Amino acid sequence: MKRTLSSELEKNLNKKVFLQGRVYNLRKMGGINFLLLQDRDGLVQIVFDKLEEKVLTGSLVSITGKVKSEKRAPGGVEVLGEKVEIISSPVEEAPIDLSKAELKAKLSTLLDNRPITLRHEKVKAIFRVSNTVVRAYAEVMREMGFTEIKTPKILGAASEGGSNFFTIDYFGRKAFLAQSPQFYKQITAGVFERVFEIGPVFRAEPHFTTRHVNEYISLDAEIGFIQDHEDVMNILNKAVKYIFSEIKKDNKSELELYKVKVPNVPVKIPKIKLADMREIIRKKYKYNIPSDTDIDPKGERLAGKYAKEKYNSDFLFLTHYPTRKRPFYTMPDEKNPKETKSFDLIYAGVEMVTGSQRIHDYDMLVANIKKWGLKPKDFKFYLQAFKYAMQPHGGWGMGLERIVYQLLDLKSIKQAVLFPRDVKRLTP
Amino acid sequence: MKRTLSSELEKNLNKKVFLQGRVYNLRKMGGINFLLLQDRDGLVQIVFDKLEEKVLTGSLVSITGKVKSEKRAPGGVEVLGEKVEIISSPVEEAPIDLSKAELKAKLSTLLDNRPITLRHEKVKAIFRVSNTVVRAYAEVMREMGFTEIKTPKILGAASEGGSNFFTIDYFGRKAFLAQSPQFYKQITAGVFERVFEIGPVFRAEPHFTTRHVNEYISLDAEIGFIQDHEDVMNILNKAVKYIFSEIKKDNKSELELYKVKVPNVPVKIPKIKLADMREIIRKKYKYNIPSDTDIDPKGERLAGKYAKEKYNSDFLFLTHYPTRKRPFYTMPDEKNPKETKSFDLIYAGVEMVTGSQRIHDYDMLVANIKKWGLKPKDFKFYLQAFKYAMQPHGGWGMGLERIVYQLLDLKSIKQAVLFPRDVKRLTP
Repeated sequence: MKRTLSSELEKNLNKKVFLQGRVYNLRKMGGINFLLLQDRDGLVQIVFDKLEEKVLTGSLVSITGKVKSEKRAPGGVEVLGEKVEIISSPVEEAPIDLSKAELKAKLSTLLDNRPITLRHEKVKAIFRVSNTVVRAYAEVMREMGFTEIKTPKILGAASEGGSNFFTIDYFGRKAFLAQSPQFYKQITAGVFERVFEIGPVFRAEPHFTTRHVNEYISLDAEIGFIQDHEDVMNILNKAVKYIFSEIKKDNKSELELYKVKVPNVPVKIPKIKLADMREIIRKKYKYNIPSDTDIDPKGERLAGKYAKEKYNSDFLFLTHYPTRKRPFYTMPDEKNPKETKSFDLIYAGVEMVTGSQRIHDYDMLVANIKKWGLKPKDFKFYLQAFKYAMQPHGGWGMGLERIVYQLLDLKSIKQAVLFPRDVKRLTP
Repeated sequence: MKRTLSSELEKNLNKKVFLQGRVYNLRKMGGINFLLLQDRDGLVQIVFDKLEEKVLTGSLVSITGKVKSEKRAPGGVEVLGEKVEIISSPVEEAPIDLSKAELKAKLSTLLDNRPITLRHEKVKAIFRVSNTVVRAYAEVMREMGFTEIKTPKILGAASEGGSNFFTIDYFGRKAFLAQSPQFYKQITAGVFERVFEIGPVFRAEPHFTTRHVNEYISLDAEIGFIQDHEDVMNILNKAVKYIFSEIKKDNKSELELYKVKVPNVPVKIPKIKLADMREIIRKKYKYNIPSDTDIDPKGERLAGKYAKEKYNSDFLFLTHYPTRKRPFYTMPDEKNPKETKSFDLIYAGVEMVTGSQRIHDYDMLVANIKKWGLKPKDFKFYLQAFKYAMQPHGGWGMGLERIVYQLLDLKSIKQAVLFPRDVKRLTP
């Protein structure tokens, strides 16, 4: 008999069905057994008068039964169970009770037991949202003429500078793990004009915050033939709008589980210069953003608050970050070279995307590399693209997990990574 | 004026257009200038009576002109150029002439100059096909109910064994680069039932062949609630069929450039047991596959030849690989435990996919780990999924670059990687 999924029960009302899944919960009330079965699409309640003792919570089973309407059951239908067949059973009882609506243990305990805690509906829901983001990002980018690229994660040189590279033993030579596809996406924008990448990036930063992990998925893009950073912002705006509309459409039950609403992404996300924002925060919220930062987390939160109050928007572009705070390849503003043609997209008070127009002129780029105290000879292959002409271009990097973390209002970004890596955690 | 792409010229016949792109080639014949402009969609010929000297091959330009029909021009249209504006020019002449139909230099020279050789139409074409494969794979997998996962590439332990792991310095601890998402995709199949991943894998194998690189993109899948490996093969068959049909639809000009046809993927790819194939190869082609291998490259070529001759198929499933040649987690065949419920998919005489049913029973898996001379305690987190019950499952790993390499009949698989990594090559 062909398998019916939990999502297909409504259209099988009063029919006999064959179900497969995991026993999510088992209760006995008034002599009747209520078995909650979990399959890839969700949960279904199955009622049995009698049930063999061998059926345990966590077991994988095949069930035949008849679908009937039942308003009190999840999804408005339940199944009158006729037969259960055990496919596979747990060797012992699970160390964490997965049948409760909320997992109560500490995050570190939940992560230590990730292979089984992932099975909890509320944990699983996170990655169903994540899945939508990745799908929607690829779709909207292709729709706008972008080519998907795959760039190397093992690098011969830590050219971008800084100490946040992991080192690899590469056949006896020292190599580095990519902390972004920056140089490669710029080079390929010179070929395909519009490129995007969905891939891991690695940051050897000893962060201990709730919003950093050392390996994450970056949704990157680079766009040729732009006028300035605002063209980049406009394309990003479209991508973000599409992603959130797809989550709204595809993840109704996940959003319900987390009791969150998908924010409305404005057709034109409001934008404000960083320097002006700092001034507003000082005056309106009586907070001085430290002068040695461009903006700090508290500043971002207040910027988010301002966007909500002033524009009723959960999103805000901060633009024109100071030149000294951005990488050497960022295009300075010709009207004020102390500022760059750059932006951050703030979502609900947290930075979600960083982007800019890049320098495309060879001489200007070489001069900047020197100004940043770096050596042009260390950038030989990168500079080759510019030596033989590059179009004006710009792009962004957007953290997949950040989006999900913010949207579902999770306590830690680690919850949005299947198997997170932090300074201490290398397993599971 | 809004930009028109080379692909949109036909519908703009006799209209004035604004084009942007790279000067791909420049010829003067009978006093007339023929400028071949390259944009993200292809090439367009633009004719000028007079042309400024500053316009160089490789320059990025904006051009206004009028579209007219011209049978001898690529695409059947050309543009009568009116005005050229230079956006950016090369600092010096490129070291490799990109204007010829074929790039004639050695592969190592072409790869050393990848930032510019990628700009050649025939090189660019490879990655347009690659882009289709990635898109089509994700589409068909989602269509079949799969969830996209992203698993960690930094591992705390090289649990699968073997010496082909790259090691990383992870905050002073030794860590490893993932050589496959094997354990993670199995664990998550226990959660989402059907998972797929598109991500990099890293193999520290000192290969010097034309069909190996040390970092490549693996198209992985894992499927729960299967009967046996044949269910996995059937789903893979559908995925492969869709991928090739999408290439046929989307990459006409790329296929033309390489003078190749997309093979027809049978609805049911023929299958044959490896032992039987060895026997056929011995008898029919008078070749003895070395007894210390399951099958060698020559054997695969002959298997491909046999599939073509016998079934008129470019694809062939070889099944039931010997237990001693497959990893410990491969499900043995209950009818003959010396063989496994495994398969390779051979495409045009080269292995393209490896897959199998996996062991899902905890005790059987633990016993196998020991039998393989490994320690169960080194597989603690992996085994946790099985301890708390796993459904029968199986999956595959498929090399993105292999598909493109085989289809376009490239000389080396390195040509199918944007920035390939081999034992000696870490740049660009």
